[in-house]
Amino acid sequence: MGGDFGPPVTVEGMALAARASRRPLRFLAHGDQAAIEAELARFPDLKAKLEIRHTDSVISGDVKPAQALRRGKGTSLWNAVESVRAHQAAGALSGGNTGALMAISKLHLRMIGGLDRPAIVASWPTSKGMKAVLDVGANIDCDADQLLEFAVMGSAFWGAVHGAGKRPTVGLLNVGSEEMKGHQEVRDAHQILRLGGLDFDYHGFVEGNDIALGTVDVVVTDGFTGNVALKTGEGMARFFGGTLRAALSATIATKLGALIASSALRSLKARLDPSTVNGGPLLGLKGTVVKSHGSADARGFANAIGVAADLAASSYADEIARNMDRLVAIKAAATSEPRGEAQSAEA
Amino acid sequence: MGGDFGPPVTVEGMALAARASRRPLRFLAHGDQAAIEAELARFPDLKAKLEIRHTDSVISGDVKPAQALRRGKGTSLWNAVESVRAHQAAGALSGGNTGALMAISKLHLRMIGGLDRPAIVASWPTSKGMKAVLDVGANIDCDADQLLEFAVMGSAFWGAVHGAGKRPTVGLLNVGSEEMKGHQEVRDAHQILRLGGLDFDYHGFVEGNDIALGTVDVVVTDGFTGNVALKTGEGMARFFGGTLRAALSATIATKLGALIASSALRSLKARLDPSTVNGGPLLGLKGTVVKSHGSADARGFANAIGVAADLAASSYADEIARNMDRLVAIKAAATSEPRGEAQSAEA
Repeated sequence: MGGDFGPPVTVEGMALAARASRRPLRFLAHGDQAAIEAELARFPDLKAKLEIRHTDSVISGDVKPAQALRRGKGTSLWNAVESVRAHQAAGALSGGNTGALMAISKLHLRMIGGLDRPAIVASWPTSKGMKAVLDVGANIDCDADQLLEFAVMGSAFWGAVHGAGKRPTVGLLNVGSEEMKGHQEVRDAHQILRLGGLDFDYHGFVEGNDIALGTVDVVVTDGFTGNVALKTGEGMARFFGGTLRAALSATIATKLGALIASSALRSLKARLDPSTVNGGPLLGLKGTVVKSHGSADARGFANAIGVAADLAASSYADEIARNMDRLVAIKAAATSEPRGEAQSAEA
Repeated sequence: MGGDFGPPVTVEGMALAARASRRPLRFLAHGDQAAIEAELARFPDLKAKLEIRHTDSVISGDVKPAQALRRGKGTSLWNAVESVRAHQAAGALSGGNTGALMAISKLHLRMIGGLDRPAIVASWPTSKGMKAVLDVGANIDCDADQLLEFAVMGSAFWGAVHGAGKRPTVGLLNVGSEEMKGHQEVRDAHQILRLGGLDFDYHGFVEGNDIALGTVDVVVTDGFTGNVALKTGEGMARFFGGTLRAALSATIATKLGALIASSALRSLKARLDPSTVNGGPLLGLKGTVVKSHGSADARGFANAIGVAADLAASSYADEIARNMDRLVAIKAAATSEPRGEAQSAEA
């Protein structure tokens, strides 16, 4: 029922995903039976793969997380997450209220050992393929421990969805100015990550321009900075699109040129805009939950289903748990190390 | 002497700026006399407008601000700023070491009353014209008071350089998630700005995508977030340019289309990339100091000279001083207000 459009988009999204998937997909659709069935008529091949779990009740976009926990029972969002907990579904996907989805997911599925709150990861198109940036909005004030957790979670995500088994590289987002290398928590996380011992290669600090350059596979930052970076990137992509259109329709010659090159230009926007790469998993849960953009179209919703299916079929949660255990050991060793040695290692 | 190229770029930049300026410009060039004269031979029309103040000594890029203060005397950067203090120049421009420029400028020129440290402002091309974003890297950890100062300084800058006398609109950069509206300092600054009484219209919170949309004239944020946003935008612009080139050279048809539309495409990059809009003033000083990108070409350097000339000819420093006084009064009134009233005003 979620997102700006509900069943007209989500049902078509399921149909597109079922056709495109390498894996045989089946769906539990939680929501208004009549509304879903009405859309289902357009996609006869989806019928055998879809089971409707009717509910009248939804969580609206302006409900706060605490309210969602108190009053959310029986809503489509609640039931979708609950079906993952009950092992009836391999993963849940919602285009609805992000805060409610986080709170209800944490309640039903619980966090992987050692983790406190989910992080939201964004997939970002770059000149070196699809990369991951996190957190993009779930955790506004982050300490060094959370940044370390994001590195663990983000690399497990990238490996499962984009990396095809490659060992990920991880960078910590920072500012370039030599005089003051970023917040204390970023510097503290850097001191631990440079010790190695986790299932990724730590690259060091990266800057904002490294995101689109694809310098590393996983860019780690706090949820405030990550959210601003992601939305700045989306705004730039939209601005480019608009300016390009205006430039190419300026004269008869440019219009002709644009017409001839139109296929190339059409494919550009989708490849450039991080917002069209839909499907932001809530990482750190003992179960797969993916958030779709509320404004996603059927193709975007299908893409988010694909992300959920890739994650659910992977062992990324095990990988996170394994690396969280290692991280505890690495941090303990770093703390017990004599101060003199730690300083010389830093030099 | 500054920047990645020195006199070959800076001298040509002066020549271009002198030709383009609405105002008659004259220059004091601080640096190696022989190197500057060698370049000057290429621009005979610049000779009468340029006076060389020779020095052998420069501040290199890796010198820390404290070192620059101790050992910087007599360097080209030091002498350039000193010539502003001595009222021999209306403004100083450097493509060199940012931290050293800030420290030496603060020492010689001092801050406008009530301000602690300079902020660096970036000009950002948007679909609604040129806008301002600050701080983009001078102040990493900012409290609410600093964000308020950025609002005052940024709106005075925008009015002097881009606004042509229009009353600026100001937005505070934040994240969209309803559940947790950003850092405490952002919320605190919001509570003061919404009271009004300063020489701009406060728009409220804006998000990352609002930067390129041009939703407001001045986007206010801390130096960490601003630096990441600016560099993310630069990275996106470069990625966009590269992908467009690749897409248009994919087939004979797209190559032909690109050739026909080439004039439009050529002008795109310069209009889109925030990094090509060169010239980042150090705001808050009692005097005009502008930082050029180290990698700027002659045209970029000329643009930065234009920014310095616009600022120096304006009364923006007076405007900052006037609004800083008002800000003190507004904050005092807000603090003395009974708590109940303040809360009901917030509701």
